Amino acid sequence: MKLRYKLLLCSLAVLFADSVQAQDLTADTVQDNLNYVWTILAACLVFFMQAGFAMVEVGFTRAKNAVNIIMKNMMDVGAGSLAFYFVGFGIMFGTTAGGWIGTDGFALSTIGDYSIEWSYTFFFFQAVFAATAATIVSGAVAERTAFNAYLIFSIIITAVIYPVFGSWAWGSLFNGSGWLEGLGFIDFAGSTVVHSVGGWAALAGAIVVGPRVGKYVDGKPQTIKGHSIPLAALGVFILWLGWFGFNAGSTTTGDTSIALIALNTFLAAGAGASGAMIISWFSTGKPDGAVTLNGVLAGLVGITAGCANLTPGFAIIAGLVAGILVHYSMILLEKKVDDAVGAVSVHGVCGAWGTLAAGLFNTGDMFNPSIIGVQLIGIAAAFLWTFGVSYLVFKLIDLVIPLRVNGHLEEMGLDLHEHDAEAYPEFSTAAGIA
Amino acid sequence: MKLRYKLLLCSLAVLFADSVQAQDLTADTVQDNLNYVWTILAACLVFFMQAGFAMVEVGFTRAKNAVNIIMKNMMDVGAGSLAFYFVGFGIMFGTTAGGWIGTDGFALSTIGDYSIEWSYTFFFFQAVFAATAATIVSGAVAERTAFNAYLIFSIIITAVIYPVFGSWAWGSLFNGSGWLEGLGFIDFAGSTVVHSVGGWAALAGAIVVGPRVGKYVDGKPQTIKGHSIPLAALGVFILWLGWFGFNAGSTTTGDTSIALIALNTFLAAGAGASGAMIISWFSTGKPDGAVTLNGVLAGLVGITAGCANLTPGFAIIAGLVAGILVHYSMILLEKKVDDAVGAVSVHGVCGAWGTLAAGLFNTGDMFNPSIIGVQLIGIAAAFLWTFGVSYLVFKLIDLVIPLRVNGHLEEMGLDLHEHDAEAYPEFSTAAGIA
Amino acid sequence: MKLRYKLLLCSLAVLFADSVQAQDLTADTVQDNLNYVWTILAACLVFFMQAGFAMVEVGFTRAKNAVNIIMKNMMDVGAGSLAFYFVGFGIMFGTTAGGWIGTDGFALSTIGDYSIEWSYTFFFFQAVFAATAATIVSGAVAERTAFNAYLIFSIIITAVIYPVFGSWAWGSLFNGSGWLEGLGFIDFAGSTVVHSVGGWAALAGAIVVGPRVGKYVDGKPQTIKGHSIPLAALGVFILWLGWFGFNAGSTTTGDTSIALIALNTFLAAGAGASGAMIISWFSTGKPDGAVTLNGVLAGLVGITAGCANLTPGFAIIAGLVAGILVHYSMILLEKKVDDAVGAVSVHGVCGAWGTLAAGLFNTGDMFNPSIIGVQLIGIAAAFLWTFGVSYLVFKLIDLVIPLRVNGHLEEMGLDLHEHDAEAYPEFSTAAGIA
Repeated sequence: MKLRYKLLLCSLAVLFADSVQAQDLTADTVQDNLNYVWTILAACLVFFMQAGFAMVEVGFTRAKNAVNIIMKNMMDVGAGSLAFYFVGFGIMFGTTAGGWIGTDGFALSTIGDYSIEWSYTFFFFQAVFAATAATIVSGAVAERTAFNAYLIFSIIITAVIYPVFGSWAWGSLFNGSGWLEGLGFIDFAGSTVVHSVGGWAALAGAIVVGPRVGKYVDGKPQTIKGHSIPLAALGVFILWLGWFGFNAGSTTTGDTSIALIALNTFLAAGAGASGAMIISWFSTGKPDGAVTLNGVLAGLVGITAGCANLTPGFAIIAGLVAGILVHYSMILLEKKVDDAVGAVSVHGVCGAWGTLAAGLFNTGDMFNPSIIGVQLIGIAAAFLWTFGVSYLVFKLIDLVIPLRVNGHLEEMGLDLHEHDAEAYPEFSTAAGIA
Repeated sequence: MKLRYKLLLCSLAVLFADSVQAQDLTADTVQDNLNYVWTILAACLVFFMQAGFAMVEVGFTRAKNAVNIIMKNMMDVGAGSLAFYFVGFGIMFGTTAGGWIGTDGFALSTIGDYSIEWSYTFFFFQAVFAATAATIVSGAVAERTAFNAYLIFSIIITAVIYPVFGSWAWGSLFNGSGWLEGLGFIDFAGSTVVHSVGGWAALAGAIVVGPRVGKYVDGKPQTIKGHSIPLAALGVFILWLGWFGFNAGSTTTGDTSIALIALNTFLAAGAGASGAMIISWFSTGKPDGAVTLNGVLAGLVGITAGCANLTPGFAIIAGLVAGILVHYSMILLEKKVDDAVGAVSVHGVCGAWGTLAAGLFNTGDMFNPSIIGVQLIGIAAAFLWTFGVSYLVFKLIDLVIPLRVNGHLEEMGLDLHEHDAEAYPEFSTAAGIA
Repeated sequence: MKLRYKLLLCSLAVLFADSVQAQDLTADTVQDNLNYVWTILAACLVFFMQAGFAMVEVGFTRAKNAVNIIMKNMMDVGAGSLAFYFVGFGIMFGTTAGGWIGTDGFALSTIGDYSIEWSYTFFFFQAVFAATAATIVSGAVAERTAFNAYLIFSIIITAVIYPVFGSWAWGSLFNGSGWLEGLGFIDFAGSTVVHSVGGWAALAGAIVVGPRVGKYVDGKPQTIKGHSIPLAALGVFILWLGWFGFNAGSTTTGDTSIALIALNTFLAAGAGASGAMIISWFSTGKPDGAVTLNGVLAGLVGITAGCANLTPGFAIIAGLVAGILVHYSMILLEKKVDDAVGAVSVHGVCGAWGTLAAGLFNTGDMFNPSIIGVQLIGIAAAFLWTFGVSYLVFKLIDLVIPLRVNGHLEEMGLDLHEHDAEAYPEFSTAAGIA
């Protein structure tokens, strides 16, 4: 991970107005400025993924819970930004205690050898990553989880669960490597660090909170259709856009290395869409809309770890496999666990696949067993840590505050009970259980 | 304001194709190019705020007026771009007559010491700002104002009302300072110049046009629910995204100074969301969706003036206070004035707060009475000028063209009467007055 | 077109981490890096236009076909990205066989004198252009075309039809000029190459597939209203945003030349909106929402060819004329051809107009008959090639697979029959034929 941090020691880069012509600018200074511009614009794109998640989750769930989903997504980043500022960032990027946890840098109180401006930039980029991990959970547990209970979990994952694993895999910004980082774990932009962590926390949440009313009849899963495929599709397009910032911005350097990453991200998503569409067509007889949309996201998650290490051809393969995988994963998982939007399959399962693919297809050292071994260790560590702790935290929250709204209120919809609101007060809607 | 303009005198920066390798590029030239790239991309983000405003205003109003709102938003920037090109830009940035009004530079006929390319860039960035000020008004007067009357006001605010105040606070691009600028008024990206100006014009409009049919029953305000919270939420996310361009792009320089601004913008919005959610939860017993969405915007408006002058900690405080303020302001204002989307509270009141906060928490010179005094003068001047002139202009328009559609047509919806259209012709909708 | 390619021969630009300070960066290297950042961010904006097209097409058609439209748009870029990677790019930019067709560079197997990183970047930018041309067709033939038949056409236009014409007008990246390029044809960002090609293919498709059930009663065209004007408007805003990348990104160089292009794009769209609104107001008595939205797009298409060659004043004229033209074109075309969203008028007709305008108003050599003559040759060549081949391809597809779903299934909606899905399963909808 160290390679991804640019030392920005020179602080003479303050370029104001009339003095510019007089000043002798160096190429190094301009490159530093370019790195700021690139990283901040990439962070803006990653930020926008919150809108994408919100639209995907709203679209794939029922109208009666739309305000609730939106509030959860909005607060994932609203409260999450503060939680990561005061707590999470230090745990993730502070001086590491033996490779296990960061211990300083809270509220940017430590900046090491970096300029304060670079710390601001790096924090902003990482904070929108943290918000991504948190918001993955909201989709899986949608339509039955109480808002206050969810909000507590959202703050805990942003402040603690995500940063702890992040410190293992990406290490300290200041001093010391994470233990996984030390092994040579490859996860360039976070297939595991962000997506699997979000996905496994989502799995724990979906198990603890239990299925929605009506999801299982005689143990057989029923399809509960989302209320707006156009909004879900818009969300997928927004996520695809934001992912260019997510992956290529992870260089935090505006140079030629961003080209391969952007291209791989583009092609893998296209391959994920194609794979998912084809496999749904073969297995159900029709090209399925929701599966195809999730195929795009699967392809994106599947290239996130290896986006800087794979050639375009292997990026296509990684995406194609992810698109096929997400289809079967959703079918299998649904037999036992009610994940309202497919978040566990998209982010957890395809995150694991992407991490494995980054090892399997690593340019210059392909199918190397020791690299693959480390990737598997990282995948397993992410699952054990995140699923385990998240399960406990959800159980603990449930002891103090009921984690889910009761069945009658759930049938009325969370919007009315939790927010005294309706998403579409003028439209006549049906129950939504097909 | 001068500090924000970079002198770009060298015109040898034209870099084409094959000649690039031959040419001896200097670091100064590349930095100039970077400033272009940064400012233009920031302007694109600010432009996209038009989509955000359109979605917020559509979502927070009723379906029967959705086409009308969209037409108003589309023409704010459509006709506004031309009005600012031919008239507004010269009034705002032309050589100033005693600090009160610009007098040249219409249609970019004057460019002073700048290259024509930089004039294009600067104009583009400022034109999307002007469109923002105009579009704030459309939300407050929504659902009852005639399209032709609104269009005239929209052109007048973009061509005259906004530019005049802008010239006071930000001064000429070519020659001379505005009188407020001369006093040392701090408003980096426009809490007052853009948002309060938009907000006070909105207040004047809402008073002159009067409340919507059904808004007051026996003098008591009734809640008129918006028809699509998901679209409103999407709009808020888009605005949050665009605001990074709005604030950080106001440097018009791609350097390290954008880092603090971007971070402050991010954190203040999160704090605004948190403040608004918490205060609505305490005062109504439920975390309110619409209030939380407006809290994000309040936080953003509240940091706009001081985004380059406050530390992150104070940015959080500025945003938090704005989030709380917007909740109470909306409740108070609603007793007397019907603002359909809360624009006066978000942009007018929180714009004033943000301008005050920029003085109160000014890094290096905090709680300085003379700075605070100047800020208060600027806040007062914005109110007196904008509210006064806007009130007169709305009254004058009303004398010539009826400012509002008559009550019966209003109940049918503006879409049918004004545009012979329906936003959702296939969906069954109810009256929408709760 | 050669002018638009920057030679990026130096490969020492790999800037990593700790080594940056040690390395002696040159200004040339930093400018190269800036070109990467600019081109990739511009490509991201162009990519996002896919979301804009999807929302415009969904909004302007009926709810019962929304999933189908989304699937078509998603696969235009999903499968299209792969088709352009493996086939289209080589045909368009490979070493040209006599100015008629490219013959190498498939899957980036040839990179000429460029670095591989620059090839990745250039490909990414061009791939999102190709997806744009394809997706224009989906709107015109919406609501009755079979998904599998459409998908085949989409792949063929992306892999062959669009690239062949592109190679004529923009020439090879490696070796040789296209025949139109050799004549001096001006089409900076693709009024003809992308938009007219998309538009004339759309026209062929709309003719071959025939009108929707209920479109003509006794030979008179009936209005079939779109189901969501807010989504269509959102799509227009997204397209407007993306167009800044489309036009200004076509420099593939981050320098001062992007300023005029961005400004012209902004002003022409505003003028297009104004022109369309005014002409609809005069001719129908009301300012029409759908016409105004299409006016924005018309203005954008109308400035795409000449965005780098026109002064801002002429950009306004080009946009204004496009806005007026689109209104009359839609009325005329509708008498005979059922284009569900106005794609032929917006992209085909206004693309031709924009190409002519680029010749008429060419700065420094205005109203030059020989320039105008070349523009007309290009316009005619685009029509003959694209309409002719597309017509044949659609006819051929129709021989093998029925191109359209049968009338009864069309009335039920394509979503049910083609995807076993509903876009809005909870909402009660009416038939949607006014």
